[in-house]
Amino acid sequence: MSGVGAGRLIGVGTGPGDPELLTVKAVRALGEADVVAYFAKAGRSGNGRAVVEALLRPDLVELPLYYPVTTEIDKDDEAYKARITGFYDDSAEAVAAHLLLGRTVAVLSEGDPLFYGSYMHLHVRLSGRFQAEVIPGITAMSGCWSLAGLPLVQGDDVLSVLPGTMGEAELRRRLADTEAAVIMKVGRNLPKIRRALAAAGRLEGAVYVERGTMKNAAMIPLNEKPDDVAPYFSLVLVPGWKDRPCSNAIVEEAKA
Amino acid sequence: MSGVGAGRLIGVGTGPGDPELLTVKAVRALGEADVVAYFAKAGRSGNGRAVVEALLRPDLVELPLYYPVTTEIDKDDEAYKARITGFYDDSAEAVAAHLLLGRTVAVLSEGDPLFYGSYMHLHVRLSGRFQAEVIPGITAMSGCWSLAGLPLVQGDDVLSVLPGTMGEAELRRRLADTEAAVIMKVGRNLPKIRRALAAAGRLEGAVYVERGTMKNAAMIPLNEKPDDVAPYFSLVLVPGWKDRPCSNAIVEEAKA
Repeated sequence: MSGVGAGRLIGVGTGPGDPELLTVKAVRALGEADVVAYFAKAGRSGNGRAVVEALLRPDLVELPLYYPVTTEIDKDDEAYKARITGFYDDSAEAVAAHLLLGRTVAVLSEGDPLFYGSYMHLHVRLSGRFQAEVIPGITAMSGCWSLAGLPLVQGDDVLSVLPGTMGEAELRRRLADTEAAVIMKVGRNLPKIRRALAAAGRLEGAVYVERGTMKNAAMIPLNEKPDDVAPYFSLVLVPGWKDRPCSNAIVEEAKA
Repeated sequence: MSGVGAGRLIGVGTGPGDPELLTVKAVRALGEADVVAYFAKAGRSGNGRAVVEALLRPDLVELPLYYPVTTEIDKDDEAYKARITGFYDDSAEAVAAHLLLGRTVAVLSEGDPLFYGSYMHLHVRLSGRFQAEVIPGITAMSGCWSLAGLPLVQGDDVLSVLPGTMGEAELRRRLADTEAAVIMKVGRNLPKIRRALAAAGRLEGAVYVERGTMKNAAMIPLNEKPDDVAPYFSLVLVPGWKDRPCSNAIVEEAKA
């Protein structure tokens, strides 16, 4: 599969933010890598890099891949699509240049690489040409419900992972049609999410979590949150456990 | 919150099976624990214990918690419910006996503790009485899609996690109403799952994975699997990525 002298591509899940939530395999992969690549906003070094910073050897080559655009253009716009596709093409070639020299390239991916991660765009472009491996990471949502001590699903519960960007009626319909839900990409969608949860009869029990397992993490039952201020990467957790005798107590405790 | 001299309860996610997929935090917690508890079938020591076996110190106290019943009785049967509730009550008291002595008790949980894990039954019973912490783990589903190199969800995709135990019409309806899906508890439900996927137009692209990241893991596009033999803990992954140019190639490659 891989050519003579070709290197190794590794998608490394860096988890929700706490460096201790890296897997042992991820730590080893970073120790073996020649190059560490990561997606980031222009001028920044990215959350994934911050998580692994203490593990980066001085001789490691860093390859930042700066997004050309983020939220300035409508994502359904054709010009945006062309630009972002070209960016992923160029990024894949920048990584390939190292792989062709026989290097091991670790690509950092916040959370889990193949679960809403940008790494997948490199994987589909390069895994046919080079040896490629994906090291899973703890997802942000898992970091959040663990921090909250909130049992999310049990037994035969259905879990729906929903983007907070979807329309209100559609969000309400889906919330009424599932035992448990995780609502991602909250940010400025919070007022809409609140209304959809209330209409679906699911506001009670819903927990708002921001900055997952970062040092400044915060959580609160959503119906007690006094404002609608939320960073983009906050989550709302809707636990599925029907008879959850302690979940509110648990959340209160985690807040204390 | 915790009484004087009271111990510490830690739910430790042991991930999908590969010991290297433990988090650094889980490894540290096991090193600090006085007691390691785990749920298991009578006479067995459980998959979670097998994953961490190399990390267990000789002086560590082991507390196996043997399920009184597994699949012999219908899970909706009242006698079953009473028996399993009593079992979780008794298990919590067995763990509490160690916590009251000021010990740190690590409870192993395959995958992620609060994601379909039995640990949650101890957490809700004990976290109000003792200091309790949950260390998330890599879920089986994440281990599977990483092994398959299969991008599961991107952008605004909806992901539905569905038990293979649900009725065929309901399964078909939900598969037709989501971008991506993970079907759990496959086992003898495989023929039904296949029919529901075909009826929802989602059979193509679906990947069957068994034994996640165990040494004897196996995966195959579901429409190429020649038989309906499947262990209970196998999964079917239905990727949501609409234009996935390489997914079949990736699966073929992972098989090679």
